[in-house]
Amino acid sequence: MKKYKLLTLVGARPHFIKAAMVSKAIAQHSSLEEVIVHSGQHYDKALSGDFFVELSLPTPKYNLEVGSISPLSQLAQILIGLETIIEQEQPDLMIVYGDTNTTAAGAIAAAKCNIPLAHIEAGLREYDKSIPEEVNKLLTDAITDLYLCPSPTAINNLRKANITRGVYQVGDVGIDLVAHHLNAIKKNKDILTEYQLQPKEFYLLTCHRAANTNTAIPLHNILLAVSQLDYPVIFPIHPRTQKAIQQFDLQHFLNHPNIICIPPLSFLPLQVLLHHCKMVLTDSGGIIKEAYYHKVPAVIIDKQTEWIETIQEGWHQITGPDIEKILDAVTNFKLPDKHSGFLGDGQAAKRSIDIIVNYLNDRSF
Amino acid sequence: MKKYKLLTLVGARPHFIKAAMVSKAIAQHSSLEEVIVHSGQHYDKALSGDFFVELSLPTPKYNLEVGSISPLSQLAQILIGLETIIEQEQPDLMIVYGDTNTTAAGAIAAAKCNIPLAHIEAGLREYDKSIPEEVNKLLTDAITDLYLCPSPTAINNLRKANITRGVYQVGDVGIDLVAHHLNAIKKNKDILTEYQLQPKEFYLLTCHRAANTNTAIPLHNILLAVSQLDYPVIFPIHPRTQKAIQQFDLQHFLNHPNIICIPPLSFLPLQVLLHHCKMVLTDSGGIIKEAYYHKVPAVIIDKQTEWIETIQEGWHQITGPDIEKILDAVTNFKLPDKHSGFLGDGQAAKRSIDIIVNYLNDRSF
Repeated sequence: MKKYKLLTLVGARPHFIKAAMVSKAIAQHSSLEEVIVHSGQHYDKALSGDFFVELSLPTPKYNLEVGSISPLSQLAQILIGLETIIEQEQPDLMIVYGDTNTTAAGAIAAAKCNIPLAHIEAGLREYDKSIPEEVNKLLTDAITDLYLCPSPTAINNLRKANITRGVYQVGDVGIDLVAHHLNAIKKNKDILTEYQLQPKEFYLLTCHRAANTNTAIPLHNILLAVSQLDYPVIFPIHPRTQKAIQQFDLQHFLNHPNIICIPPLSFLPLQVLLHHCKMVLTDSGGIIKEAYYHKVPAVIIDKQTEWIETIQEGWHQITGPDIEKILDAVTNFKLPDKHSGFLGDGQAAKRSIDIIVNYLNDRSF
Repeated sequence: MKKYKLLTLVGARPHFIKAAMVSKAIAQHSSLEEVIVHSGQHYDKALSGDFFVELSLPTPKYNLEVGSISPLSQLAQILIGLETIIEQEQPDLMIVYGDTNTTAAGAIAAAKCNIPLAHIEAGLREYDKSIPEEVNKLLTDAITDLYLCPSPTAINNLRKANITRGVYQVGDVGIDLVAHHLNAIKKNKDILTEYQLQPKEFYLLTCHRAANTNTAIPLHNILLAVSQLDYPVIFPIHPRTQKAIQQFDLQHFLNHPNIICIPPLSFLPLQVLLHHCKMVLTDSGGIIKEAYYHKVPAVIIDKQTEWIETIQEGWHQITGPDIEKILDAVTNFKLPDKHSGFLGDGQAAKRSIDIIVNYLNDRSF
């Protein structure tokens, strides 16, 4: 039986969450071998330190260690690093995730080296080219061979661009990971005890996007709004946000009796908070999806989302960093009747790998 | 009146031909300033040495001197080089040409730095992602703001991908240059005298594509076919082809009485030969267009062309490096009735610059 070598490129926290179950599915497939390359684009210890252990991820064989340099330098360094690795490993296919500079660089390297490219989380769009991630999405999907899409909207976006070949709706591989750990998440309430929280009697806040932390006003508005909510707000602070709070002299909010500031959390404790909170206020795309899966309402403190189905079904609302809109969204929320489960059933990784194997088998005949 | 700074990126011989008349149009526009960056991707002296003088091109302000390294290294070096230049020059818009690695790298740099991007010669496709230039086309057009298209086919290709915003048919800026020099080309017959050629009683052969020079058989077939034609064949030899002829031990063809081998030619003498030849046999996209403009029949010794209108109208035929097809195409050619002039009227550069200025004016209100 022919054995295929897959080169997987990861580089940011969300990639690891997405790669976890995909790597597991690859490992379970006797005809596949995976070589993982970590670009090193994000390497914040506080955020990703114990990730490999916690999620039992396979360790990357290569680390390009590009670090927090400019986007163009990141792209350049990843291209150069991948060239050597591709020559050495001669992979049969390359896998990239999401929409970071790592994603785009990986796609370009694969296309230039004539290696088939599978893009996991393909087809998402925000239709705003001034968003750096949108540029990565457009570049990657322009040269992808297998579009492994998380949602019907992603499929539609590709169809609008007349991309219909190699397009598959597989569901969300990040949700696979939550589904896989769901029993543990439901049972383990240690973190609620630790912060004296009652299920459904607290809010969860996460905030880290450049748009909300680069200037004072959005961050001020968000903190002011949540300080007025009817239940305590637990707030794991991203290092970037911590820095912004100091820079913009907003520390007094951290001492507000209604706001419980805690250090960044690893994957599982965060899922426990998310599962049990009354509502989440967030600008994280990953948490938006996870909240939907947990059937937890969300207020999106960003200007848009790629996950428009969550809005259409009434689970989530977009407010941006607007005090009145945030308070209104929290106060007047009504639980919707419908939950389509459009992000899948926890089998997206397995489905993706089956598609990849079929594709490679077809090519080798 | 507001003055706009345009950053033009060039890097290969065809870019200079395309940029010549565009730079002239920019220089004639009082609200525009042009800064030219030469990537140095192609720097063959024999081919481009006197280009700047012959075509009175403005000299590049920067030269990145990337040279003949691997495609991924070229992309990486151009990205890094452009980052500094963009920061220094703060351009209002970037112009890229064609479909080389220089083109794609320039497009990515512009998009990542949030600089509007005009792509001259946008929309062409060969619908084969294994061709390196096709990858560059796809990457560039995925993030272009102004698509300045040379032909109706280019417009159609973009429409198929549902790209309709910022799309303009301007004609071919390379043809502008031929049109500009047409009187001189018609009058000057020095090169015919030099090689004792009579108008319409000789063939012109050019051959340089990797597909025709990487292995022995295509090159052998092409040379064998042209050696059997009814008139002499003048053959300016590209350095890559010269090397291949030696490597594959095909030198005897260079001494064949029907084949006149000459060194590579600069732009104008080549146009004189093209204008006066009975027919051209070529694998160069540029010469295919120029032949059409001169109303000279062509045999395309490549597997495909982006200029399908020339085929549809009956001026050109695709044979690939096939002896019988080449001989048949030359012998049985019939002059077509129609010449639509789809590549424009020599005003493509002016039209492009007017569109760019309008775009920039609209943005600044």
